Amino acid sequence: MTAIETQGARAKSAAMTLMTSSTKIKNAALIHIADALEANKQVIIEANKLDMDAARENGMSPSLMDRLMLDSGRIDAIADGVREVAALTDPIGRIDKLDPRPNGLLIGRKTVPLGVIAIIYESRTNVTVDAAVLCLKAGNAVILRGGKEAFNSNNALVDIMREAIKAAGLPEDSVSLVQDTTRDSVNALMNMTEYVDLLIARGGAGLINHVVANSKVPVIETGVGICHVYVESTADLNMAAEITFNAKCRRVSVCNAAETLLVDRAIAHEFLPMVKKLLDTKDVELRGCAETVNILGESVKPVTDEDFYTEFLDYILAVKIVAGIDEAIEHINKYGSKHSEAIVTNDYTASRRFMDEIDAAAVYVNASTAFTDGGEFGLGAEIGISTQKMHARGPMGLAQLTSSKFVIYGDGQVR
Amino acid sequence: MTAIETQGARAKSAAMTLMTSSTKIKNAALIHIADALEANKQVIIEANKLDMDAARENGMSPSLMDRLMLDSGRIDAIADGVREVAALTDPIGRIDKLDPRPNGLLIGRKTVPLGVIAIIYESRTNVTVDAAVLCLKAGNAVILRGGKEAFNSNNALVDIMREAIKAAGLPEDSVSLVQDTTRDSVNALMNMTEYVDLLIARGGAGLINHVVANSKVPVIETGVGICHVYVESTADLNMAAEITFNAKCRRVSVCNAAETLLVDRAIAHEFLPMVKKLLDTKDVELRGCAETVNILGESVKPVTDEDFYTEFLDYILAVKIVAGIDEAIEHINKYGSKHSEAIVTNDYTASRRFMDEIDAAAVYVNASTAFTDGGEFGLGAEIGISTQKMHARGPMGLAQLTSSKFVIYGDGQVR
Repeated sequence: MTAIETQGARAKSAAMTLMTSSTKIKNAALIHIADALEANKQVIIEANKLDMDAARENGMSPSLMDRLMLDSGRIDAIADGVREVAALTDPIGRIDKLDPRPNGLLIGRKTVPLGVIAIIYESRTNVTVDAAVLCLKAGNAVILRGGKEAFNSNNALVDIMREAIKAAGLPEDSVSLVQDTTRDSVNALMNMTEYVDLLIARGGAGLINHVVANSKVPVIETGVGICHVYVESTADLNMAAEITFNAKCRRVSVCNAAETLLVDRAIAHEFLPMVKKLLDTKDVELRGCAETVNILGESVKPVTDEDFYTEFLDYILAVKIVAGIDEAIEHINKYGSKHSEAIVTNDYTASRRFMDEIDAAAVYVNASTAFTDGGEFGLGAEIGISTQKMHARGPMGLAQLTSSKFVIYGDGQVR
Repeated sequence: MTAIETQGARAKSAAMTLMTSSTKIKNAALIHIADALEANKQVIIEANKLDMDAARENGMSPSLMDRLMLDSGRIDAIADGVREVAALTDPIGRIDKLDPRPNGLLIGRKTVPLGVIAIIYESRTNVTVDAAVLCLKAGNAVILRGGKEAFNSNNALVDIMREAIKAAGLPEDSVSLVQDTTRDSVNALMNMTEYVDLLIARGGAGLINHVVANSKVPVIETGVGICHVYVESTADLNMAAEITFNAKCRRVSVCNAAETLLVDRAIAHEFLPMVKKLLDTKDVELRGCAETVNILGESVKPVTDEDFYTEFLDYILAVKIVAGIDEAIEHINKYGSKHSEAIVTNDYTASRRFMDEIDAAAVYVNASTAFTDGGEFGLGAEIGISTQKMHARGPMGLAQLTSSKFVIYGDGQVR
């Protein structure tokens, strides 16, 4: 057995224990984790310093370094997040109803853990704890495969969590970190059907596509967001400009940020200068169709077909003028990544059509796509945003980390 | 584009129409299908005759020929099944609740179709219509890849369905049959991520393992059932014998049939001769552990470890004597295929432990595993029995052929 297979076997064994562990003991483990993170701040910060020093030497960008960095305040915030997960309702063991069948059998569906969840992610250190505690609360063992940039920080965090879990009386192998941060370990996890029940892929499009194309273990892909704001002709134009600005500029590096603005021709002359004024405050680069360039002038670059397929993750916005809702829906269903899509309108029929005909994880009327997030949706916390249709779609909370089994109570029935 | 890719693209286009088609028009299509199947009985029976003649020439076994055969009565039964699906509640478009968030956003989850479903199955001709109408009712386009033994029958059935769907005003490409019945078309479907949203694999373990290991399209695996009946020491022994007999002998070729019997040592001397007497009426071959052979005599063959991993699909039953519920649970979680598992007991704690600690799609107290079936569970109809934990587990009805999307209603909210 290779090291990672041994890790898988141990996680599977831990998962069997977690499957029948009570909410009380799982919550105790979470509280232990929160306390231990706070008590061991210095250890974490010192480990993080090693990663930060290496990142600086390797010329990591300031925004990525910011994601990597842990300080006292951030560790407090992570610990608070753990306590929030402890306070969530345990999804496991619930049977919503038991229906009697004509033959007297009583049949229901019970929520159960998935088993072992492996998560492949990059350099965000907060994911290490967030993902681990969400999996744990839903009765799953988790194998974390973080990026090499955060290796020292992740090891410190995972060591502290394992100690705390053990102190609470649960198997420490409920949470573990893959020690090999090369692509080899990703490939190994994708083939470990015996030990891994679900693989969650977070990260860049390259990694996600590799995993989706090659994994034998079931995968949930997360994250790529080519999101649109469509301003329909009856929209409140001030509202539309604010929503566009927020969807683009709140944080450009996240998957729910807008990448393309679609504007009805009837209002384009009035609306485009309004929204440009707002976007100019953040120096957003506009790439527009010929008509857009006509209206806004040469400061707008011509947009290409490839731009419409691109998740810029930057202060760049593609702009297209459309004839109306038909063209808008067609454009979004063609170029979108089925993540988050918004219409701004005051037309009842247009809003209904958009909600029905757009095929995406989250569809909005008169609100910013920036709300696509487990916390904002009231799920409590999320482990990622699924852009696929199987098992889970959109922000994934505790309920999406579970499976079910049929329970059947009889008194001797045969068929 | 290859022929099968063109078929995929057409199905995708049909799926876009189905996504927003009303229940009324989908039901009209189903009723058209039922009527057309009855009206075209002779065409179907003649096409089926070609398959039956070829099967006879190729020496197909009588039980497989029976699965292939279509006559007037069976076509009536299939048509009745279609009408039953038409009468089921449409799962699509439902929003169970819309929750207001503190910022005034109204957020809910709406049931939507999955898109295009491809089904790979073998020679059972009834699956062709059952699967197609279940997919259609849930707003999905379906690509059917049936076995070559049923090729003429399937083409006749699909042609009739396509005509009927068109007559109802829906795209005929909502249902289509793959014309290539070699492994090539299976491999092509597994790679068609652009057009196929879900692949359902029905059939032998070889086919299913090939698909699970190699598909880039998300897969639901169905069917392999290594099911157990565990007779606990407090069981009503008559009930236990009847349940064992039914679980083994009702139909030996189906996935919910029992393959292994576990018996508590305390009652083995009394119980084993009782159950053997029943099983002897069907000439069931017993393969037992050493203690079982001791009790029942030399007519019982010694069981091997491999037997415990085998889905016999035949009049063969492995038998093992266990010390008690711990050993029984351990055995089942080790050797079972997580399909259907039954305990016969009168002990409250034993029943609770079995229900909690057995990891399977369907777990029974005091009833036969033979009930694992969409119809018996009250789902109306089923497209297969999932033995995986992702997306759907156990019998899959209409609800398991759907996805969801978040719908968010705002009045200008930005984050």
